[in-house]
Formats: sequence, C-alpha cells, structure tokens
Amino acid sequence: MIKAAVLGASGYTGLELLRILALHPEVEVIKATSRQYKGLAVPGVFPFLSEYYDVLEFSDPAKFLQTGADVVFSCLPHGTSQEVVSGLVASGVKVVDLSADFRLKDLKTFNEWYGEHKAGALIKKAVYGLPELHRADIKGASLVANPGCYPTGAILALAPLVKVGLVELGKPVVIDSKSGVSGAGRGASIATSFVEVAGGFKAYKVGSHRHTPEIEQELSLLAGRGVSVTFTPHLLPVQRGILTTAYVWLNGSPGPESVHGLYESFYAKEPFVRVMPEGAFPDVSQVRCSNYCDIGVWYDAKEKKAVVISAIDNLVKGASGQAIQNMNLVCGLDETTALQSPPTSI
Amino acid sequence: MIKAAVLGASGYTGLELLRILALHPEVEVIKATSRQYKGLAVPGVFPFLSEYYDVLEFSDPAKFLQTGADVVFSCLPHGTSQEVVSGLVASGVKVVDLSADFRLKDLKTFNEWYGEHKAGALIKKAVYGLPELHRADIKGASLVANPGCYPTGAILALAPLVKVGLVELGKPVVIDSKSGVSGAGRGASIATSFVEVAGGFKAYKVGSHRHTPEIEQELSLLAGRGVSVTFTPHLLPVQRGILTTAYVWLNGSPGPESVHGLYESFYAKEPFVRVMPEGAFPDVSQVRCSNYCDIGVWYDAKEKKAVVISAIDNLVKGASGQAIQNMNLVCGLDETTALQSPPTSI
Amino acid sequence: MIKAAVLGASGYTGLELLRILALHPEVEVIKATSRQYKGLAVPGVFPFLSEYYDVLEFSDPAKFLQTGADVVFSCLPHGTSQEVVSGLVASGVKVVDLSADFRLKDLKTFNEWYGEHKAGALIKKAVYGLPELHRADIKGASLVANPGCYPTGAILALAPLVKVGLVELGKPVVIDSKSGVSGAGRGASIATSFVEVAGGFKAYKVGSHRHTPEIEQELSLLAGRGVSVTFTPHLLPVQRGILTTAYVWLNGSPGPESVHGLYESFYAKEPFVRVMPEGAFPDVSQVRCSNYCDIGVWYDAKEKKAVVISAIDNLVKGASGQAIQNMNLVCGLDETTALQSPPTSI
Amino acid sequence: MIKAAVLGASGYTGLELLRILALHPEVEVIKATSRQYKGLAVPGVFPFLSEYYDVLEFSDPAKFLQTGADVVFSCLPHGTSQEVVSGLVASGVKVVDLSADFRLKDLKTFNEWYGEHKAGALIKKAVYGLPELHRADIKGASLVANPGCYPTGAILALAPLVKVGLVELGKPVVIDSKSGVSGAGRGASIATSFVEVAGGFKAYKVGSHRHTPEIEQELSLLAGRGVSVTFTPHLLPVQRGILTTAYVWLNGSPGPESVHGLYESFYAKEPFVRVMPEGAFPDVSQVRCSNYCDIGVWYDAKEKKAVVISAIDNLVKGASGQAIQNMNLVCGLDETTALQSPPTSI
Repeated sequence: MIKAAVLGASGYTGLELLRILALHPEVEVIKATSRQYKGLAVPGVFPFLSEYYDVLEFSDPAKFLQTGADVVFSCLPHGTSQEVVSGLVASGVKVVDLSADFRLKDLKTFNEWYGEHKAGALIKKAVYGLPELHRADIKGASLVANPGCYPTGAILALAPLVKVGLVELGKPVVIDSKSGVSGAGRGASIATSFVEVAGGFKAYKVGSHRHTPEIEQELSLLAGRGVSVTFTPHLLPVQRGILTTAYVWLNGSPGPESVHGLYESFYAKEPFVRVMPEGAFPDVSQVRCSNYCDIGVWYDAKEKKAVVISAIDNLVKGASGQAIQNMNLVCGLDETTALQSPPTSI
Repeated sequence: MIKAAVLGASGYTGLELLRILALHPEVEVIKATSRQYKGLAVPGVFPFLSEYYDVLEFSDPAKFLQTGADVVFSCLPHGTSQEVVSGLVASGVKVVDLSADFRLKDLKTFNEWYGEHKAGALIKKAVYGLPELHRADIKGASLVANPGCYPTGAILALAPLVKVGLVELGKPVVIDSKSGVSGAGRGASIATSFVEVAGGFKAYKVGSHRHTPEIEQELSLLAGRGVSVTFTPHLLPVQRGILTTAYVWLNGSPGPESVHGLYESFYAKEPFVRVMPEGAFPDVSQVRCSNYCDIGVWYDAKEKKAVVISAIDNLVKGASGQAIQNMNLVCGLDETTALQSPPTSI
Repeated sequence: MIKAAVLGASGYTGLELLRILALHPEVEVIKATSRQYKGLAVPGVFPFLSEYYDVLEFSDPAKFLQTGADVVFSCLPHGTSQEVVSGLVASGVKVVDLSADFRLKDLKTFNEWYGEHKAGALIKKAVYGLPELHRADIKGASLVANPGCYPTGAILALAPLVKVGLVELGKPVVIDSKSGVSGAGRGASIATSFVEVAGGFKAYKVGSHRHTPEIEQELSLLAGRGVSVTFTPHLLPVQRGILTTAYVWLNGSPGPESVHGLYESFYAKEPFVRVMPEGAFPDVSQVRCSNYCDIGVWYDAKEKKAVVISAIDNLVKGASGQAIQNMNLVCGLDETTALQSPPTSI
Repeated sequence: MIKAAVLGASGYTGLELLRILALHPEVEVIKATSRQYKGLAVPGVFPFLSEYYDVLEFSDPAKFLQTGADVVFSCLPHGTSQEVVSGLVASGVKVVDLSADFRLKDLKTFNEWYGEHKAGALIKKAVYGLPELHRADIKGASLVANPGCYPTGAILALAPLVKVGLVELGKPVVIDSKSGVSGAGRGASIATSFVEVAGGFKAYKVGSHRHTPEIEQELSLLAGRGVSVTFTPHLLPVQRGILTTAYVWLNGSPGPESVHGLYESFYAKEPFVRVMPEGAFPDVSQVRCSNYCDIGVWYDAKEKKAVVISAIDNLVKGASGQAIQNMNLVCGLDETTALQSPPTSI
C-alpha cells in the first residue's frame, strides 16, 4: 500500500481527496492535517466520512516533514505551500501540490501575480499536472503542480485548435467561465453565504484573475508562441462545477477533418475527456462528482469562428480527482484507479 | 382609471404583470385570459395573488377583441400573438406585445427566424419598446413591441459605446448571457424541472438563438451600419435574472471622458439604469424583482478592450416591468409608476 | 413625516426595514447604524438600495440616544438591545425592538434562556407585538417587543384552536418548523455558507431552541392555563420563509363551525392572515417578500387530530414587516401602509 | 457475472440503478427498458453515463419476459408493475420490485389505497426488503418488495424503540418528513419545475399519503400490535434526500441503557445505519449519493419524549441502493457490494 498524507485536509479539496481515496485500493491515508480541527477525529467533524476514517485524527500541520508518507498532497494555500513542498521534495517524498505555487514556469510572472516566491528554484523541476498534455513528464516527476480549476477547463477546451495552429492569434481569444461556489474554498465569509449567493450570479475579478497567466502559459506552449486571452470568471450558484465558454476565430480550415473531428481525434485515447456528439453541449451536472471533462464544439465555417464549451467538476478534474490521476501516474498505477465512478448527475 | 387586459395571463410574464399592476394607482385589470385555467378565480390558482384579484376569473382567450380595455398586454406566444394584436390595434386599443412578433423591423429576417408573419404590414407601425433608445416614439405608439429579455440586457450594455462609434466592428462582439429559468416560460418540461436544473449549468441554442437578430438590429441602428454579434445564452439555476457579459474592442479612445464616464453620461437621466461605480460589477440578485438594469464597466486601455456587464430581472426589465414602463409612456403617465419598489435582493 | 432610525441596519432585518420603508409615504429614515460599515454610504455597500438612500451613511452605533428620531427600530442582538432600548424609551422615543429582549413577560424565564436581563423593569411595560392578538395594546405602547420569527408562525397557526379551548392539553402539541437561512442572520459562518447549506437539510437546537418559551407564553395566555409544546426547528435551503407544521389533538368538536370555519372566523378581519380554502395548504414561496401569513387546516374528526400549517416570510411577517405593522399602529397610521405589495412568489 | 435487467430505466430510480451498477463487479446490465426512449443509446439520452453503457440501448418494454436476465429490477409504476412482476416470478427470475405493488401484506389495505390488485396472490410471497428488519427472509426470496422512500427513513428511525415496546402507543406518533424533489419521479410537470420549487417549501397529501399504511404495517409488526401514526410529507427544494423527524412518547425508561445506547446496540452490526454521537443530528447532505441512513436521537427523560431524526438519500437507501443491497442478499453476494462509496456530501 502506498502511504499518503493530505496537508490542509479540511478544506474542500482536502475533503474531496479523502472522499475519493477512501476507496483507492492501493492507497492508505496515514495523515491528514488541519490547523482548525487538530486533535479531532475526522468523522467527528465531517459525519459523511464516518465508517471510512474512524481512526484518523486531524493532526497538527506544524510538522509536515514527519509524515512518513510516500506521497503527499498539499492543499495548503499558495504562499504557504511552497516552503512546505520544498522541504518535502528535498526529503525524497513525491508531492502533488494543489496550490498555485509551482504552476507558473516563469518566476517573474509568478512574482507579479502572487508575490515573492520562497522556493523559486523548484519551479523548473515541477511538472504541470495536466495529463492530457504532459503525461510522460508527470510519470517521472517528483513534484506535480496540479492545475488550477479554471485553467483545466479552459486549456482542455482550446488545446486541440491551438496545438494544430488553427487559432487566429491576431483576433481575441475570449474565455468566459462560470464556477460553483466550492471554488472559493471552505471558509467563513458573507460573500459566499447561502443567502448572498442563492438566486444570484455575478462576474468577479474582471480583468485580473490569477488564472489568466496560467492559461496563457499552457496555450502559448502549445502554440509555440505567445497567446493572450481575455478571461472572465463568474460565481455560479451551484456547489460544484465549472462551465467554460471559449470563443476563438480560426485562420484557416481544419483540413479533411471537421473541427469536431479534430477534437475527437485529439482526445480519442483520453480516459477522462468526453467529446460530445456534434450539436450536443455539456452541462456541469453531467460531470458532477466525476473526473470527466465534457466538451462540446460549435463551428461557423463562414465566419471562421468556433465556440467551444467544456464542463468539469471543479473539485474533481479541477482539483482532487486530477491530483489523484497525477498520483496514479507518478506511482505507476493505472491512471484511472479510484476515479472510475460515473458522475452522480443529480 | 385605465382599463387593462392581460392576454395569456397565467404564464410568468402574465403573472408578473398582475403582480406589479396590483398596486398601479391608475390601472385596473379588467380581464386576464388563460386557456389552461379559464373559469377559475385567479387567486384559486395562484394563492400569492389572494387579496388582490379576488373577483377576477381567468377568461376564455377566444374573444380577444371584446376586452373592453383601453390597453392590452399580450403575453401570447409569438406566432399566436400577431393576429390577435393586429385585430386589437385595428380596433383602436393600445397594445404592448410581449411576444417577438413585432420586434424585428425587417420582414424577411423575421420570416427566416420565426416563420411566415401573418400580420407583416403592422411591423413598420410597431415601436421597439426600449425606452432608453426610443422613448419619444413609444409615447405616440399604438403598438409597442416589448423587447426580448436577452436583447434588453445586451443592448443596454453596449449602446453607449456603439452609439458614439467607438466599437471596432472589424473585431468580434461577444455577448455571453446567462438567464434564470423563468425565461423558459411556465410549462411542464423535464428540461426545466427542479431536479434537472438545480446544480447544473449549460449553454443552449449555441449559434442559433432567435434573439441574435434582435440585438443586431438595434445595435446596427445605433451604429449607423451593420453590427454582427456572437451571442451565446446559458441556463442559470436561479428563478429570475439575466447577466450579460459583453466583450468589445474599441477603435479609439473615448476622448475626455473615460469609458466609465461615457456610460454615466449616457444613462444620467434614465430612471432604471444604474451605472455602478468603477470597479464594481452587477449581481442579478441586486436587481431582483425590480425594473433596474445595473451596469458595470471594465476597460483595458492598452489592449483597447472593454468588458461590460449588465444585470436585469428577466421578468421585470426583461419583460413585464418594461411593458408597464412602456404602457406608462403610451398613456402619458409618469414612466416609473408602479415600478418604484426596490429590488428584493434576497 | 415620521422620522425613523434603524439600529443595526446592516443585518437582514435591518436591510429589510430599509427596503420596505423606502416606499413608506409617512416615514423618512434619518439614521441607520452599523458598526461594520460606519461611514460608508448605504448603496455603496448594498447596491440594491441605490437610488433610495443615496444620501444616507451608516453611522456609528455608539450614540444611540442622539437619533433625533420619532421612532426607533432596534435590530441589535439580544443582550445588546436591552440597554439601548431602555435609554431610548426613557427619552420618550417610541421603540420597536426586533430582538428577543422584551418578548418574555417572566423575568425568571428570560434569565434562564438568555442570561441576566439588564433592563428587566421594562419587560412589563413592553407589549408583545403580534397585532392579531394584541392590537389594542400595541396602539398605545411606547415599547413593542416584535415577536420572533418561529413564534409568529407557530402562534398564528394555533391561536384559534387554543383560544376557544379546543386543544387537548394533556396530549402533545408538536410544532415542527422549517426556516430559510436568513433566519440565522447576516454573518460570516461556514455553517451557513452556500456550499454547506445547498442540497442539505437538518434539524438544529433539538429540544433547546429559545423560541420555545415565547411560543408557550403566548399560547398559555390564550388558553388561560399552561401550554407546553414540543418544538423542533430545521434549516431549510431557501433564503426566506418559515413553514410550520403543527399537530394538536382536540378535546371536543368545534360546534356548529368546522375547524376550518373556526379559522376563517377568527382571522376574518385580519389584513395579513390568509386562511386558505379547505384542502389547500401554504407554500412559503406564496408569501415571499410579503407580510402575509398563509394558513392551511386539516382535521381528522375520527381521531380528533388537527394538522395546521402556516407559512410566513421570516424577514417580513416574521420580523421587519411586522415591525412596520407595529410602527404603523403605534403611530396611528393605517396598519397596512407600505406593506401592501403582493408576494413576489418566484 | 449476474445478468440484470432494469425495467423502466429512464426514471430516477432506474438511472440510479444504472449509475451504481456501472461499477458492480458481479453484475452486468444486459437490458434497460424505456417506452419514452426505446431504440436510443443510453449515453445519448443521458450523457453522464457515457463511457459506461455505450453499447446499451433502451429497449421496448413490451416484452418483459424475454429479458434473459437472472435478476430483474422493476422500476415500473405501481399498478403496472404487478402484472409484469407476476410473470417474471413465475418464469423463475429473481425480482426486486421498486414499486409499491408488493409492499403491503394485507390485500384489503392495498386495494383501499392503490386500487384493485391484479396479482394479489403474490403478495404473501413477497418479502419486504428492509434488510435491517428482514435480512434472513430476503436472502431466500424470489420477490423482494423494495420499501418506499419515506417508510425506509421513518421505520429505521423508530424501529429500536418500537421493537423493545417502549413507545406509548396511546399517545401520538408523529412523523414529519421532508423529501427532495427526485422523490416525485422524472416527469414533465409544472409543480416540480425549477421555478415553482426553488425558494419554496410546502406540505402535500396532508393526512392522505400512501406511505402511511406501509409505515404502520412494519411498526405494528415490530410492536406486536397495531401502531397508528400521523404522517406528513413535505417537498424540500433539494434534488436528493429525506429527513424524517419523528416524535414519540415512551411508556417507561429504557433500562440500563440510555435511549441513545439502545439505538447504538440495535444498529451495531448494520453496515448502512450510522447512529450519530449524542447531541449530533443528521443532515441529508451527509448521506448524499450513499446508501447510509444516519440517525440522531434526543430524549427528554422528564417528559418521556423522544425526537428521533433520520436522513437518507431517497434515491439510494430510499430506492435503488437498497434494491441493490437486496439483490446482493438474494444473490448471495456481500451485501455492501457496489455500495461502499462515501457520500458525496456537497
């Protein structure tokens, strides 16, 4: 059995790791840290986990290095995660970091958006954990930077077109995303209270969301040159799910294949990307609690414009499910282990 | 007292008319038709209206012309509304039509999107009922074509920039809209059932929604030349509200005023448009059950791109509230009569 | 114009007062206090109130006595409210207190449930502000103790049967209530966050909710002897509304009238209680944003048991609407002023 | 591999069977019938099942007997199910019937509540499929009558007290239940539409719900004499989940054990009943998408009254999960197979 530790286990991504790992046949969670709940039994605080982690207590997060684990999932906030992860990697433990600390390859860009990095040297060593783009590298990684939730949905929506060079980069690339409230994390806040959120809908961080450079980094890497996007996140009154509506203009025709066919080919062997039939578009409910990314493609040949829509569960493919997918790859397991459950849908 | 009739009164726009008109000091609803509920007392079917319409029965919609009303609100479906409205206008009754039947000025365009018009001659006579753009004409109209819900939000979001010629029409105009479920009307359908909708979110009619030509008509009119938009509607799991996120690129700088200032000037005297302070963006909850359109503006001077976000209640400013605003204008009343209640917010 | 002040104006009951008073023709809000937002313009913090209170700033709550108001609504927390109210009453200002501080007539009971009272002498002077039971006293009151939300729904559901002595007090009186989340107040808390509440439902404070003695006090007063109830509150994933399902067993038959008829008679002249037709039962959505209490009655003559169900909007009839109803009475205005809007329903 | 067929597979209980059986290691679904969707691929209609049932088509329900299955789940409506099940049982196939057709042991009672039974002879042969009470019988059954959703929650809440004879049957037994909307089935209806349900809450079928005799049957069986209950169902604006709040008065003290201890003992070996710690009460969210029944117990020794609260997912323990639990028992498999996933919680 692989021994795993979850740092920052009482947030939504931590809890989602515990939920999914509960049935992972090759992994045992030996440690779960939480400053807020240290010393309390996991099911005492979270009754839904009763019968699964009855002997596990939330432990003091102060002594991260003494996890005794083979693999560590860090769900610590960015800024906090970087130092901890640095120590863990140095000690030889495999790490999947769910924070933003090691996603950006360019230190300067990181510092602009997140503040001074305290373990910048490690950035180059980290592998960006989107298996659909970096599977081979992830397999050999000691540190996987798990992608952000918005970038996961946005990049998977645009990768096929960008990769083949069909996107007219002189025209706007508009990414309009809508995320469920769990994306804001588990914390006490009036802004995310039921009364304020239910029945409401709004954009936030217009023009200034930190996931912008992450999306641009990966699309630029695919394009082989700089890609600039206009990205607007919105707060959706659902618990889970991100729908991304991406608008791009093409510089040519997709060749013998249709645009839809291009997506089908690109993702043909991917276990967790489901390209929907032509004319069908995804709903976040249809991927709920699963690791799938569903993609729908619309193309207007006359105006050479494409609208590509993707749906993920922000806590699964957008965070903890993808983290386990990465761990499976890092540990040489079948990539889909513990991730095969169908979406719950309702 | 002005005598009003509501045709198709048991749908959401009809009920919303009854709700708002209940306290209109100058209007008495003398007739409300409903095929489904004819012969039943209004509060018997809709208990929330008990104490308001205790003597009003839903009547047979067959004899529209015998309403005895001074003004008629038609909430009939498009296709059905046109013939009825035609007869009413001929009989000298003032009509506010909430269907799509008289919104498009170009008969050919109408026929393409909605099928053969049966009262096409009347199209030219109808006034597009967006008071912010056509107030003077509405005052003298015998037939007001009440705008669609999406167009109301989209046009108000873009009108100031389009009007002054600042929008670079060679670049995309992207309109990404999200509507509450009441926009789909009051009907039995699995697709709009609580279980299917709650927790979900999706785009629909991608590239083919009938509100597209309506938006383009009004923006083109403002621009003085053809404006083409890329419009995607989404189904939001809330009862009421439309948020529209519009992306445009500018062809120059706004002159002495900032882009935000341009919006403030443009709407300075409008009773129902609230331009939010710079840096603030609207939430559909903040206009809930009111006739307001809240607008937030973001501008990136370097890339000359603007993101303009508007919020309306689709049943009020997007339908019945605007219809009453139009009726007030047509009847020479204060435009805001019966529409002054603050949003309920929660 | 009556000058009003709202203390603790940035909570949900305070905001609801501002919302409703915005259109009160006889009242002007001259002061709104908020520790959290002092110095900020009301619409800056709460955009839905923009255009209504553009010149009103949240003020420092420290100097309550210098309100210059004719009537003060106190939305301060219990414990805090009592001392402030005491000073205000002494200064000759009329007060409607929305806290629990002056609802219980028995000081000992108060102290048991809420802790030592600091202005206990004033308890006897306060009038319990349920107009349906105490209208005459309210009219002459200098201090009105506005009822709790649960007690309003529960007492109105049972008053007719208790008053005529039909309830068999040797058998259980079960009151099973379900409240929307705004009942928990406006505050930062994980327990009332969207993610935790949406899709959930639970009982809380089983056997120990502080509204129990309040319900028992009023029912006992009506019965002329001690009434004991079993009361369980639940947290309902809606923003507004309380549904109360009350179970009682009768000690005899209701005489010439049916049980339903008894309710109709009892509430015949009440402007805000709507007894539904036999066989119909209330839905909290049908009273949403209104001051109504809807009541449905079911009676099983064989087993002599009655199930009475009431619905209110917890923020209106259960708090701020009733407070304005009380203010109207205290100030000699028509009781329904500013409270006539129909429920929004959806 | 056990071959299974699902009749009426496109309703919520049918879909939930498909969802859970997708990962059942011993079962293959070889047939799924649906009148509405016959001839269509399962994932074409329900995208969330894409990658699971890609070769399964909904088939014509007309030829039920030719299923070729070892075990059949009937999700047909009551009335329709009885004849089909009768034929299947006669042909030697094991059947788990999710309708109400074989739950009531007394034919007269069935006929009163549901109308004339067309296969009444089979009633005695059917085993009531609540494993916690009838496990031994289920193992040998050829026909399992899967319990109703409300009865599952209500019976599990009261069984321990009733079984030991502690419930004072001369006093009321009040069962106040609240169910998510999926309990109403998957169908087009205004009453269960998002707009009508969201933000609302109401009781329905007050005094007349068909689950009453089912609850009374099982409690009477446990008590050894007639038990009569007062049962009120409510419609909760959530997709899944039933919370039952049961009120009983005791006729004595529970002996050396506390009431809470009695529950712990009674359910000590049950894999799917979780008795919560004293002072803790269940939330439907904590059992979401799982087969658990969580129970919280409150006891007032002075008044000898107990409030027992249970939570289940109406589609899992209240329907399809319990059906699979029953199938596992019937087929000699580990009872928990395919049912071990933790609740999703959010």
